[in-house]
Amino acid sequence: MSATAEILPPKSTVAVDAMGGDDAPLMVIEGLAEAARLHPTVTFLVFGDRAQLEPLIAKHPKIAAQLIVRHAPDAIPAGERPRNALKAKFAETSLSLAMQSVAGGEASALISAGDTGVLMALGMKHFGLFEGIDRPGVASFMPTLKNETVMLDLGANLIVGAKILHQFAVLGTALSEAMMAITNPRIGLLNIGSEDSKGLPQVQEAHDLLSQTHWPGSYEGFVEPLDLIEGKVDVLVCDGYAGNIMLKSVEATTNLVGAYTRATFTESFLARIGYFFAARQFAKLRRRIDPRRYNGAVMAGLTQVCVKSHGGADGVSFANAVEMAIDMVNRDYTRRVPELLASQA
Amino acid sequence: MSATAEILPPKSTVAVDAMGGDDAPLMVIEGLAEAARLHPTVTFLVFGDRAQLEPLIAKHPKIAAQLIVRHAPDAIPAGERPRNALKAKFAETSLSLAMQSVAGGEASALISAGDTGVLMALGMKHFGLFEGIDRPGVASFMPTLKNETVMLDLGANLIVGAKILHQFAVLGTALSEAMMAITNPRIGLLNIGSEDSKGLPQVQEAHDLLSQTHWPGSYEGFVEPLDLIEGKVDVLVCDGYAGNIMLKSVEATTNLVGAYTRATFTESFLARIGYFFAARQFAKLRRRIDPRRYNGAVMAGLTQVCVKSHGGADGVSFANAVEMAIDMVNRDYTRRVPELLASQA
Repeated sequence: MSATAEILPPKSTVAVDAMGGDDAPLMVIEGLAEAARLHPTVTFLVFGDRAQLEPLIAKHPKIAAQLIVRHAPDAIPAGERPRNALKAKFAETSLSLAMQSVAGGEASALISAGDTGVLMALGMKHFGLFEGIDRPGVASFMPTLKNETVMLDLGANLIVGAKILHQFAVLGTALSEAMMAITNPRIGLLNIGSEDSKGLPQVQEAHDLLSQTHWPGSYEGFVEPLDLIEGKVDVLVCDGYAGNIMLKSVEATTNLVGAYTRATFTESFLARIGYFFAARQFAKLRRRIDPRRYNGAVMAGLTQVCVKSHGGADGVSFANAVEMAIDMVNRDYTRRVPELLASQA
Repeated sequence: MSATAEILPPKSTVAVDAMGGDDAPLMVIEGLAEAARLHPTVTFLVFGDRAQLEPLIAKHPKIAAQLIVRHAPDAIPAGERPRNALKAKFAETSLSLAMQSVAGGEASALISAGDTGVLMALGMKHFGLFEGIDRPGVASFMPTLKNETVMLDLGANLIVGAKILHQFAVLGTALSEAMMAITNPRIGLLNIGSEDSKGLPQVQEAHDLLSQTHWPGSYEGFVEPLDLIEGKVDVLVCDGYAGNIMLKSVEATTNLVGAYTRATFTESFLARIGYFFAARQFAKLRRRIDPRRYNGAVMAGLTQVCVKSHGGADGVSFANAVEMAIDMVNRDYTRRVPELLASQA
């Protein structure tokens, strides 16, 4: 089967680290089975322990031909520090081998549910950064009342300087253009208030830098979480400390309000009748606010498409991360970043 | 009428800055009218422009006797920098005069919807800090699936050192004990992950400091937003940068999910029938997740009860902030902080 994979066009091949994530490799194979059904022309190179992977794949005979196992004898243990992951003893891990396959041109995208820091360190080693970008940023698409907003960084870099925040704005703009087909993305800078005098010194400095830059769209100044939710910007730039806290707060609150809503519907007889009539619409609502739909973070700044799934992902959410990677390849995101950087030089 | 106020026991008198906040003084008087109805034995000293206040109070004849106007010729303009608010030219403002009334023992608590930084600067001047506390922290009670959690700081101090984070834990513990009647509060430290190796260096250092301290309850280590929502801790300690972003993210998401839920109910005929039956329970849900219910932040660390209302508060939310101030006085919160600090010395 591997002979078949080699002659497939690179765009149709995705490399997958099957051993990263809490419920790996089970949830990875379940996610891939779903993704393979949706994308019959895509081939997945599945890196991991062959003995564990083959029985799991055998349960999905209809798509088994699309999943090609590449044996990786090792995996990076959960909790391993990023700099250790670079050591020679981890050269044969599922993640390293999957990345090498992308770097070598055999596949067009990498997906892993492994640790963010490890993914970043190995991504910088195997893929490298675009010229003009000093650090990768973790980017995701957040649902808003109007559309979806690209948000970065989400936790890879805690506190960063103004220059890095500016680079995040470039990467976010490229993502918004390529992935959301927005030709003039509005950029916002996350802050604790919309007044010009508020916030950390480096965020103030980034505000000046972003104001002075020529953008394909516009720089809208400081924004707060509510502005994001209301869809006032297409790109939200922040350091990883604030971004991570915001992302996790939004997820946690969605869970809380969801729990309250469900409780509300069982509190009285009339409410239960109401639920009977509204159940279908409610199922729709739950899908709409299901955080699993938004699984998949881009390691932006790396020269290859590199998507991180949540470590606690299940099959449904892993499939969404795969969807994002395929979409990024099809939309040729990696070409837009150098163009944008060149236009600002 | 002011002669009557002077002989009232101090515990029954609350000083109010009527000129702070976007819709002041209208929303202040509406909020006080509601609070006065609920607390017929409490007298409010209302500091502000007499010409504006008296017609507003006259609209509430039943409680007008509980609202005693103290004319303040000036107000601190919105957007004024905290250090400017300390200048002599602002000595006669509604906020300064209200604080002086509390400092002089005429009233037992201060409420204002003015700017946090200004409130903090003037609070330190007029009230001072408890011995052993270097900075006030803005604290609030966040609803969780189980109860309410005291969270501080919420934005008064952006990035702080380990020592200040430790002091916030002391203040939060005193608040949880006094206000929530929890005898052994569980303390958590907000971080971007629960692993010991993650986060900013000063948050790591605070983790060590909190671990080594003897608490009436327990120190639970690092927590993330979901842990707060699930009610795993009674006190959440954080710097003002993360705290502010988290607070605003929770509020914004509540709004988003609320909007989605309302939209869901009008999307189909059956769903509208469902809403008809569930309407009453839904009104309950909306009250439960209404951020106005949680209006009122404590300027913790000051030697007097000092409550800040949201600047954009309406009458309903201002009344909640007043409720909090009265509750703090009745529960004698200010006595607990020095006791706790002494027990740790």
